[in-house]
Amino acid sequence: MRSRRCGRPASLGREFFATRAVSEALAGFRPARRTPAETMPLTDALHRIPAAPVTAPHPLPGFARSTADGYAVRAGDTRGFSEALPGHLDVAGAIRMGAAPDVAVGPGTAVAMPPGGMLPPGADAVVRIEYTTEATSGTIEVVRPVVPGDGVIRADEDAAPGAAIAPAGRPLRAQDLGMLAAAGVTNVSVHARPVVTVFSTGDEVVPPDTSALMPGQVRDATAVALAALITEAGGDPIPAGIVADDPGLLEATLRPALDGSDLIVISAGWSVGAQDEIAAAVGRLGEPGIWCHGLAIEPGKPTLLAECAGVPVIGLPGNPRSALVVFRLIGMPLVRLVGGCTLPPAEATVRARLDRDLASASGQLDVVQVQVSGGSASPILGTSALLSVLTTADGYVIIPEEATGLGAGTEVDVTLYR
Amino acid sequence: MRSRRCGRPASLGREFFATRAVSEALAGFRPARRTPAETMPLTDALHRIPAAPVTAPHPLPGFARSTADGYAVRAGDTRGFSEALPGHLDVAGAIRMGAAPDVAVGPGTAVAMPPGGMLPPGADAVVRIEYTTEATSGTIEVVRPVVPGDGVIRADEDAAPGAAIAPAGRPLRAQDLGMLAAAGVTNVSVHARPVVTVFSTGDEVVPPDTSALMPGQVRDATAVALAALITEAGGDPIPAGIVADDPGLLEATLRPALDGSDLIVISAGWSVGAQDEIAAAVGRLGEPGIWCHGLAIEPGKPTLLAECAGVPVIGLPGNPRSALVVFRLIGMPLVRLVGGCTLPPAEATVRARLDRDLASASGQLDVVQVQVSGGSASPILGTSALLSVLTTADGYVIIPEEATGLGAGTEVDVTLYR
Repeated sequence: MRSRRCGRPASLGREFFATRAVSEALAGFRPARRTPAETMPLTDALHRIPAAPVTAPHPLPGFARSTADGYAVRAGDTRGFSEALPGHLDVAGAIRMGAAPDVAVGPGTAVAMPPGGMLPPGADAVVRIEYTTEATSGTIEVVRPVVPGDGVIRADEDAAPGAAIAPAGRPLRAQDLGMLAAAGVTNVSVHARPVVTVFSTGDEVVPPDTSALMPGQVRDATAVALAALITEAGGDPIPAGIVADDPGLLEATLRPALDGSDLIVISAGWSVGAQDEIAAAVGRLGEPGIWCHGLAIEPGKPTLLAECAGVPVIGLPGNPRSALVVFRLIGMPLVRLVGGCTLPPAEATVRARLDRDLASASGQLDVVQVQVSGGSASPILGTSALLSVLTTADGYVIIPEEATGLGAGTEVDVTLYR
Repeated sequence: MRSRRCGRPASLGREFFATRAVSEALAGFRPARRTPAETMPLTDALHRIPAAPVTAPHPLPGFARSTADGYAVRAGDTRGFSEALPGHLDVAGAIRMGAAPDVAVGPGTAVAMPPGGMLPPGADAVVRIEYTTEATSGTIEVVRPVVPGDGVIRADEDAAPGAAIAPAGRPLRAQDLGMLAAAGVTNVSVHARPVVTVFSTGDEVVPPDTSALMPGQVRDATAVALAALITEAGGDPIPAGIVADDPGLLEATLRPALDGSDLIVISAGWSVGAQDEIAAAVGRLGEPGIWCHGLAIEPGKPTLLAECAGVPVIGLPGNPRSALVVFRLIGMPLVRLVGGCTLPPAEATVRARLDRDLASASGQLDVVQVQVSGGSASPILGTSALLSVLTTADGYVIIPEEATGLGAGTEVDVTLYR
């Protein structure tokens, strides 16, 4: 193998860890850490993850309601009514919204119902207004029969007492918040957001607010983008700044972060040495240590996964594009796992036809950035390191490990950025 | 028409406004209001909408960089090199990350490059390390030729000075924040979040924290769910509480909210009277007034759209399910419009086959809630008013206005909740 280097230190450590497939990492690297439950006001709980199923404390809606404008009746009284042979009912009164009925339905009578009104005693159905006509003052003509339950929402039709109205592990959606409000659940027990501490390394990396760069310096593009992806996955990103490429310093910086982090993410410098130094430092942080250093993914091979003293640690490749691609595929699911999200929301995808051939090495998963237009997906080619490849992409296509490429015209699923 | 009512006041106002198609409302109801620009720290700008294109203040990455581990060379020196006939180059030194090169590449020499390192003077290409071997100390053997530009990222390859690195009107994504950080843009001018004031009406509606309900009362399920949808659309929801069904009171409550709102949303009580009272109150708020009262959509017909003194106003149907269905289709696009979002993110959708026939009246758009499993979409039937229809749904299918139904087995796009 032609890989001895001239003019630089020898590589450390990488070769001791097997490269893993992405599917293997997703299925096999499952740290046990979960964030504890905390109680939140319902109004702040959008997209938060219930720690246990939320149940209805009482039946919902809580009383039998009309579904529509009409008249509450005894269904039996309408038997045989038709357009040809209408029946007549006496109107005994009207239901007011939000108040207990002050009138009951007796034989041969009806009570005017607003939609959503409470069914009066004696009634078992509602005739819709369009099947009635005012006959004389105080009497209606009815041209259709109803059966018990017609036009009525049962008292427990939305939820029976004790029924689950939001499952554990699924982010709360708008309608879930509505259902919880209807049930009077104004505080909800959800997993705390995982605290994700983000370190950047690399002697070339300087903070984004550096106005004048020295030759060879680049601003830290990765940390702010990772913070955004962590937020999207339900985590609470803590930017911990830039650490120089020094294994001792790295270890000394990472160790205190174990306390207070649910997950640690390190975006490496570009150099191979920087990545090996991270592996060396992470390897000393705690048991069980490094799970893999190397993923069969392009871009993103030099990814490190570890668990140190109960805290999952992800070491990302040095270039921002690779780091963001890998974090979407491996890091966001880990944030969700630690945050108790077992039913993540679906990604936005679109079917499109590749407008050119895509080559791929078998045994690795390829993530290809594409632009989508008129049902056609155009791969964005160019140097793998460029952030502009991601910013000009609408989404990405995955070439699975077993494939050796995809031909032009192949229909693919494009996962869309949002 | 059989619609005279007995035991209740006559309907006001609705019949004076034509029912509009949903497509007509989306294309035709386009209030001019836009929120002003404000400057935000980049770290808080995820999903915010740039008010103008963001441009690169200088070339990015700013210097020519190596794409990979290897050696910087003069491409011309490698002409004819091959496995059969390797060439030799003297190694003049090594590039350190983040520092200006302290060595140049002269004829017949090479400089060791880390990936991402700054190309030294004199070099125009990088030979990857796998095509080199250390021959003697200070000399490498090279088995492949390179051409100028090989293994090199140009100084302006990610962005030329003045190039747009984020468009106006598209929510900032993680990678956009990364690109802006790389460019040193740590503050960004974005549209202010539209302030959306949410009123609930209905004599039957009580606050969600009401522990014991009186007969006929229901808790306000809609307001908290609307607030969530407003947040998802990039707005800033302001809950303004519950107003009794009294036109004078409604007008007196709505009028002061025009100041300080970019959009007003009123979820009506269930009763037809309540909705007509809202129309009457909104009609007096300001010019040009009501645009439509009635949409050809099921559920959600009694929707009101108005613009009063420069503020768009949406009156939603009384039952929570209809209100949320209509707000997703009509309200969220309006929040985005007012907030300057011209390129909204794609919805998550999945193709599935209907597992039963769905009937529909021609001339109205139907929104059918479905569960999705194994490529099959099962419509959730039941009373249109139930919130549980939404909370147990995975997404919804739209039956377009021109269709009279969809047959079992039809392939449909399901828009997935998230």
